Amino acid sequence: MADLVVVGSVALDSVKTPFGTVTEALGGAATYFSYAASFFTQVRVVGAVGDDFPQEHLALLIERGVDTSALEVLPGKKTFRWSGEYGFDLNEARTLDVQLNAFADFKPKLGPVHRQARFVFLANIDPVLQLDVLNQMERPALAALDTMNFWIEGKREDLLKVLARVDVLLINDTEARMLAREPNLVKAARAITEMGPRTVVIKRGEYGALLLSQAQFFFAPAYPLESEFDPTGAGDTFAGGFMGYLAQQNATDLASLRRAMVRGAAMASFTVEDFSLERLKRLDPREIEARLVVFADMVRLEG
Amino acid sequence: MADLVVVGSVALDSVKTPFGTVTEALGGAATYFSYAASFFTQVRVVGAVGDDFPQEHLALLIERGVDTSALEVLPGKKTFRWSGEYGFDLNEARTLDVQLNAFADFKPKLGPVHRQARFVFLANIDPVLQLDVLNQMERPALAALDTMNFWIEGKREDLLKVLARVDVLLINDTEARMLAREPNLVKAARAITEMGPRTVVIKRGEYGALLLSQAQFFFAPAYPLESEFDPTGAGDTFAGGFMGYLAQQNATDLASLRRAMVRGAAMASFTVEDFSLERLKRLDPREIEARLVVFADMVRLEG
Repeated sequence: MADLVVVGSVALDSVKTPFGTVTEALGGAATYFSYAASFFTQVRVVGAVGDDFPQEHLALLIERGVDTSALEVLPGKKTFRWSGEYGFDLNEARTLDVQLNAFADFKPKLGPVHRQARFVFLANIDPVLQLDVLNQMERPALAALDTMNFWIEGKREDLLKVLARVDVLLINDTEARMLAREPNLVKAARAITEMGPRTVVIKRGEYGALLLSQAQFFFAPAYPLESEFDPTGAGDTFAGGFMGYLAQQNATDLASLRRAMVRGAAMASFTVEDFSLERLKRLDPREIEARLVVFADMVRLEG
Repeated sequence: MADLVVVGSVALDSVKTPFGTVTEALGGAATYFSYAASFFTQVRVVGAVGDDFPQEHLALLIERGVDTSALEVLPGKKTFRWSGEYGFDLNEARTLDVQLNAFADFKPKLGPVHRQARFVFLANIDPVLQLDVLNQMERPALAALDTMNFWIEGKREDLLKVLARVDVLLINDTEARMLAREPNLVKAARAITEMGPRTVVIKRGEYGALLLSQAQFFFAPAYPLESEFDPTGAGDTFAGGFMGYLAQQNATDLASLRRAMVRGAAMASFTVEDFSLERLKRLDPREIEARLVVFADMVRLEG
């Protein structure tokens, strides 16, 4: 088992879906990521919150064994806030408001255990911050990155710099097309492997996820859910299951990446079943195992 | 090997995609279906064309061994015509014009070999016609049906009648939701199994296809294509590969249905690589085998 560092947002989310509303609920890419990954390995979060961040949210991560020593509480600052809404097509969020707050001029400071971690995930955040964290790492076995349209359009040069130095890009399909400036998804993924990452994982929400690496494809379907409430955090939860499994196995080979895809898909399927981290909070590890059995059966061709 | 009967449109299609245009090219659900299925089994087409239907199109089906004895040429009538266009998102066609022509008052007349066929596919056409064909069949081992929003909205009662008597519904995801009046796809598929078909196959274009049967799920990804030209006929080609394989195996068990899904996905992947039936016309059976290997590899979890 190897350590896993994540840098990214820890936030308060206000979300409206056709199935309900939450206000200032626990959210943020690093939160979903680390909570999901904690089912597999030792996670260490790098980030910042304001002094308005509820103590109970911190306690939640600590209870899961997540190392929050590099999650700074900045006095006099407010926590990152995001608000968005979804229509009946839960595939796309409409962002209503973003307040960077504590992240506005955050300088990450990694401790010795963080620097030596073998696995690192640079969640969707300013690529300058992502690069700063990567520069502080000693020699990770695998570095992965997520990003979004905002940075692809607004900070492309910085993004390309950090992209050149990571092994895996996890990204959604619209953003993959935008980054590669290519409408065909396969060509886009191939073009991205020319930018640095040898492996590209394309997240397609309810349509599953596609991995392209060394001219091989792997496809993980999404779990067929009967109740979807809120897709917020599903992509970060996917990344948490994916990276958490790789760190647990201390493996970076293609066979492990395939198995990691299915762990990611399984974890993400729980997140969308309720708002915020509510479903993950009541998740029993045996439920993960049960869903992995369904995944294996969903693609089984023989018998 | 068992016989396979299909009733559906044989048409002249005018299609515009971002990659080009064709005018009055060979098309129609029964055409794509029977051409694809001819790689697996003996297909017999039931339908009608006008006396303007080019002889070379008929010859093409006959060369593939398709029985066209119940494909009537109606003197003084014109062939079914469809025209539509696609944007860069090739998932949805915009229909510009439909002329039923020869199909407007077509009365299918099945011969003895048709009536005795073990497998029958009721392609997307007026449900009254679908029921007429099913009534003429003696005792099919498996009857499958496709339909579309036009019939779901306009002839729901007739559609429900024929639906009650088929084993498999092949349908796209939007139409499944519309038919079941349920936005959640899993719930929609389950509701449809209450209407008659014990198996529902949901076609999702570039996102693959999902099968629900006897509380089991099976997922076939779409082949990751680098060149997509025209998705017209992809769904019917899928159905042709799916039903063609089942008829070839003379099987209706769930394991065969799973393998049939992958044949359907493989065949459909060729159709979108060119306009009309152009790619299928130059298809070598060894190319199908090669794509099936990729499909198996795309979902392989071990090794």
